Amino acid sequence: MGAESDRDEWIARAQRGEARAVARLISWIEDGSPSVPYVMERLAATTGLAQVIGLTGAPGVGKSTTTSALISAYRARGTRVGVIAVDPTSPFSGGALLGDRVRMQEHATDDGVFIRSMASRGHLGGLAATTPQAVRVLAAAGCTVVLIETVGVGQSEVEVAGTADTTVVLLAPGMGDGIQAAKAGILEVGDIFCVNKADRDGADNTVREVRHMISLAEHDPYAWEPSVVKSVASKADVGDLLAAIDAHQAWLLADGHLQQRRERRAAEEITALAIARVRQRVRDVAPGLLATLAAEVAAGTKDPYSATDLLLDQIT
Amino acid sequence: MGAESDRDEWIARAQRGEARAVARLISWIEDGSPSVPYVMERLAATTGLAQVIGLTGAPGVGKSTTTSALISAYRARGTRVGVIAVDPTSPFSGGALLGDRVRMQEHATDDGVFIRSMASRGHLGGLAATTPQAVRVLAAAGCTVVLIETVGVGQSEVEVAGTADTTVVLLAPGMGDGIQAAKAGILEVGDIFCVNKADRDGADNTVREVRHMISLAEHDPYAWEPSVVKSVASKADVGDLLAAIDAHQAWLLADGHLQQRRERRAAEEITALAIARVRQRVRDVAPGLLATLAAEVAAGTKDPYSATDLLLDQIT
Repeated sequence: MGAESDRDEWIARAQRGEARAVARLISWIEDGSPSVPYVMERLAATTGLAQVIGLTGAPGVGKSTTTSALISAYRARGTRVGVIAVDPTSPFSGGALLGDRVRMQEHATDDGVFIRSMASRGHLGGLAATTPQAVRVLAAAGCTVVLIETVGVGQSEVEVAGTADTTVVLLAPGMGDGIQAAKAGILEVGDIFCVNKADRDGADNTVREVRHMISLAEHDPYAWEPSVVKSVASKADVGDLLAAIDAHQAWLLADGHLQQRRERRAAEEITALAIARVRQRVRDVAPGLLATLAAEVAAGTKDPYSATDLLLDQIT
Repeated sequence: MGAESDRDEWIARAQRGEARAVARLISWIEDGSPSVPYVMERLAATTGLAQVIGLTGAPGVGKSTTTSALISAYRARGTRVGVIAVDPTSPFSGGALLGDRVRMQEHATDDGVFIRSMASRGHLGGLAATTPQAVRVLAAAGCTVVLIETVGVGQSEVEVAGTADTTVVLLAPGMGDGIQAAKAGILEVGDIFCVNKADRDGADNTVREVRHMISLAEHDPYAWEPSVVKSVASKADVGDLLAAIDAHQAWLLADGHLQQRRERRAAEEITALAIARVRQRVRDVAPGLLATLAAEVAAGTKDPYSATDLLLDQIT
């Protein structure tokens, strides 16, 4: 990774908004480079400068199209925008499949937009640690809005979206049926529900259905009541969605809500890093011990709890 | 929880195959009862007596119907069968939504069948620890086949299915399109791909498509080459699937493959327990410290790695 002065140079270039340097720092995060702690220490003070917006939803609801339309809307306001597209990755091959992210290509030549795919890699705690780190880099590069796009199918992806300042759950007519949404835990994380493709039949039904489900949930009078809006992102019609995001942002800034959310996100990040450190110690401090213990547990000569005690004794 | 003698009594009753005692022990596992380590120590020797079959696939492919048909097929052989149905649970409310598991109700009065839903609860590492523990209880109760049914949408659910001895990926005509399957990491975990609802149009196309994708993957000549079969579970037509499972089981028993898989599963279990132990220490040994550190990280006055070091210093 080079000497400390090299790292300082990359950090300085990222802070000036150079796309290549931003990409380099995020690659370090993704690869778990030994430079990451130093970079995070240097960028700690930049934390919190960006408004973090999570977008999640099932495949096919138009997440990439909506992200692209939101980028255009923020660019029209003169805002520098960062995008982190989280790919649910094969737990084995480690390769990220992009696909419809090409819809965001129209912003590829705009130097006020940084788009980055990050793979979830199948490591427990991976995204919980790497996503806020990437947000920190994008904020340092001057992005005052960071969009995190995740596919709302896996729990970890839903949780990542849920640690944003504002979480938008995208639905499409006919796809928003209640049970499926609740199953994925999406209902609880949404600050805003947006029925995209609202020019199709059934959009108003889906809006009603979501409103009904929200009305059934327990509601804390001091909490935000989720808003439900419509969009046709393919025709750049995201005005109501943008207004809903602005309204949520205004609510967050009142009464310390934003600070609460960010402390929750930081707690998740620290916990994820602590777990990653424990995993690393298992590999580095006690190589072979896990395999030996696993063989005994598989053979039935040792129970898993005794094995865990022995493992933790060695690494702590 | 009761005294040690009570636990011994419940264990003894579970080992005699009493459904109520089996349910009790699995509830302890799900609730993280302090009795679990003792139960696991007592049941350690039973590990490995059950053949563990994972079934996964997207919503709508007919997982519950296929599970039910497989139960009937194994019952016809006189096998005692355990079923663990993993529910992707809301990370916030903690409630499991069942729904189509009613399709398995036909086996409710058969005392040679144990069916149990387990919620994933949203805890990192949760299922990786609780699923093998529940398998141990079912094996102790005399189940020589345990089916683990998971919805193939989240990474953790896919991983749970992938730690089975034999993993069956269910597809349906028109739903098996390559990119989606690969995205969810399903292609790498499947030992057997089964196109269910094969009486519908497009089944042969889906079979061809899956075969093509398998042919594109790197193939280790010493590894199992995934088989592709068809079924119509709603008409109890699962004969080819059962034969494919038998063939995979025969392969596993040769050349130490089974032992390798089980050691991998045990390593996952121990790691998950170690991580759970670390989380518990954060709560018990250092209450409030995580919140204090998170507030500093959120405010930008501390970086997340320094915070993690301070946290781990306190708890280890």
